[in-house]
Amino acid sequence: MKILLCNRAERPGSAWQRELQAALPAVPIDPWQPGMAAEYDWALVWNPPQQLFDEQPQLKVAFNLGAGVDKLLSLRLPPALQVLRLQDAGMAVQMAEYVCHALIDFFRQLGVYRAQQRQGLWQPHAARERRAYPVGILGLGVLGTRVARAVQAFDFPVLGWSRTPRAVAGVRCFAGAGELDAFLAASRVLVCLLPLTATTRGLVDRARLRCLQPGGCLINIARGDLVVEDDLRAVLDDGHLAAAVLDVMAEEPLPAGHWLWSHPKVTLTPHISAMTLRREAVAQIAQAVQTGLRGEALPGLVDRARGY
Amino acid sequence: MKILLCNRAERPGSAWQRELQAALPAVPIDPWQPGMAAEYDWALVWNPPQQLFDEQPQLKVAFNLGAGVDKLLSLRLPPALQVLRLQDAGMAVQMAEYVCHALIDFFRQLGVYRAQQRQGLWQPHAARERRAYPVGILGLGVLGTRVARAVQAFDFPVLGWSRTPRAVAGVRCFAGAGELDAFLAASRVLVCLLPLTATTRGLVDRARLRCLQPGGCLINIARGDLVVEDDLRAVLDDGHLAAAVLDVMAEEPLPAGHWLWSHPKVTLTPHISAMTLRREAVAQIAQAVQTGLRGEALPGLVDRARGY
Repeated sequence: MKILLCNRAERPGSAWQRELQAALPAVPIDPWQPGMAAEYDWALVWNPPQQLFDEQPQLKVAFNLGAGVDKLLSLRLPPALQVLRLQDAGMAVQMAEYVCHALIDFFRQLGVYRAQQRQGLWQPHAARERRAYPVGILGLGVLGTRVARAVQAFDFPVLGWSRTPRAVAGVRCFAGAGELDAFLAASRVLVCLLPLTATTRGLVDRARLRCLQPGGCLINIARGDLVVEDDLRAVLDDGHLAAAVLDVMAEEPLPAGHWLWSHPKVTLTPHISAMTLRREAVAQIAQAVQTGLRGEALPGLVDRARGY
Repeated sequence: MKILLCNRAERPGSAWQRELQAALPAVPIDPWQPGMAAEYDWALVWNPPQQLFDEQPQLKVAFNLGAGVDKLLSLRLPPALQVLRLQDAGMAVQMAEYVCHALIDFFRQLGVYRAQQRQGLWQPHAARERRAYPVGILGLGVLGTRVARAVQAFDFPVLGWSRTPRAVAGVRCFAGAGELDAFLAASRVLVCLLPLTATTRGLVDRARLRCLQPGGCLINIARGDLVVEDDLRAVLDDGHLAAAVLDVMAEEPLPAGHWLWSHPKVTLTPHISAMTLRREAVAQIAQAVQTGLRGEALPGLVDRARGY
């Protein structure tokens, strides 16, 4: 077994390579560069170039160093390539943190209090009823379930929607296209946690945002292309939506001068809601490789046709 | 049984009186005014004047419409008066929300990202190790325990300190004056949830703030006078403390021009971390009154000598 490492965020000879090699001392791990011999079995990749797969058609496994595989699956990949993705690996708790922060910031009007502090104004506002702020989680996989659990701890009503039926304790579950509008109509806060696929691209459009209860908040920590940004702008501007908290956008980095930078109802962060944590990721990769060496079923296998 | 209502935040004939009367239809409930006959048994109070107790020395019970009784106990009260305080009543979850928001805002550097958004700057920062941010809860009563549980859900190490020994699942517990410095030395984030008493006034002074791990954050949602504000300023200015999030201050409302309004490391809110929720409070008061009418032991009884 020989492994290629192609993490475009890092230089070769970096901490990733060092720690992976320490975790898998018997397996050669080489940083990818153009023109290498076609003799590798696995590739550990983050935003790899098409050239890697063109030159290494014999690859058996590509391990994606993140949760979202939409960019990887948009490449031309060897037909039999198995695609694995990082599962949780410390990302779920970060997403739970991010969502709870955004939810509390919105529900408790903490942005209003920050503005009041700048003005030197001491002015309490009436408490809101948390029962009137049901939180809908769009996507109930590993990450969505963890986020739902975190939100439940603050006694908000929690709803969830998934493509196929799921049962999550304490979560009012909806499933399939037929129940999407009912799910949205029962939510005031919407948390996007879906994978980006041909089916989900542009799912959150004007009509669906209008289904939400008025005065709500959109929190997107999955992929920017799930949301039609011009439609989001329309429902923010006409007052149907009170706020949007976006960690992901259709174009990243967000171009200078884009309306999202300065819209008074938008809070944005540069795709940091769940950062890949090296230690957790290395441990998970090492475990997957050892599972593969034993010839057992690989964990975190992506359904390439389904898209996640 | 006759009840006086003295909630100085509200007008007589207000929603409080209406809802209390609906919950206790057989008991006369009168809004307090100066010069009333000394014929009342219970008083439901929030920031009552000394005059109330001077005129009503026969009162058996004063029910405080909040968790902190320090102001009430600073009055001259009838010696045999039993003081009850609101327990939780929807306040604990609000405090858990406030603390988790402040903690995540600090740990995830979300203030930095807000500033970057204002500048149009797309710049992710490296993830921090949550193991390096142990959270110490000063005070492990009903509220402190609820806050500890919420913080645990985000996988932070949680420590707790209480006057007398307590055991809380998953919390490294310290107790008594002799263990306070060790508790502080093991904490990077400090959450103040102690009652204000003769013993706790000024407890969080320069020496104790210096015990905390460097680069930490103080979150005070209990009483301003627990903290020596000039000492806090010193450890913020010399860099030992990275941030302070204060919902309470020595003087409230905070005077115009006070340094806390504009210190770059201070976030402040106007005593809103836990607002008394009328519905929950009315239900709890009605239950206490009925318990009293049956002659049973009253819930939420304050130890007047101890101060909480």
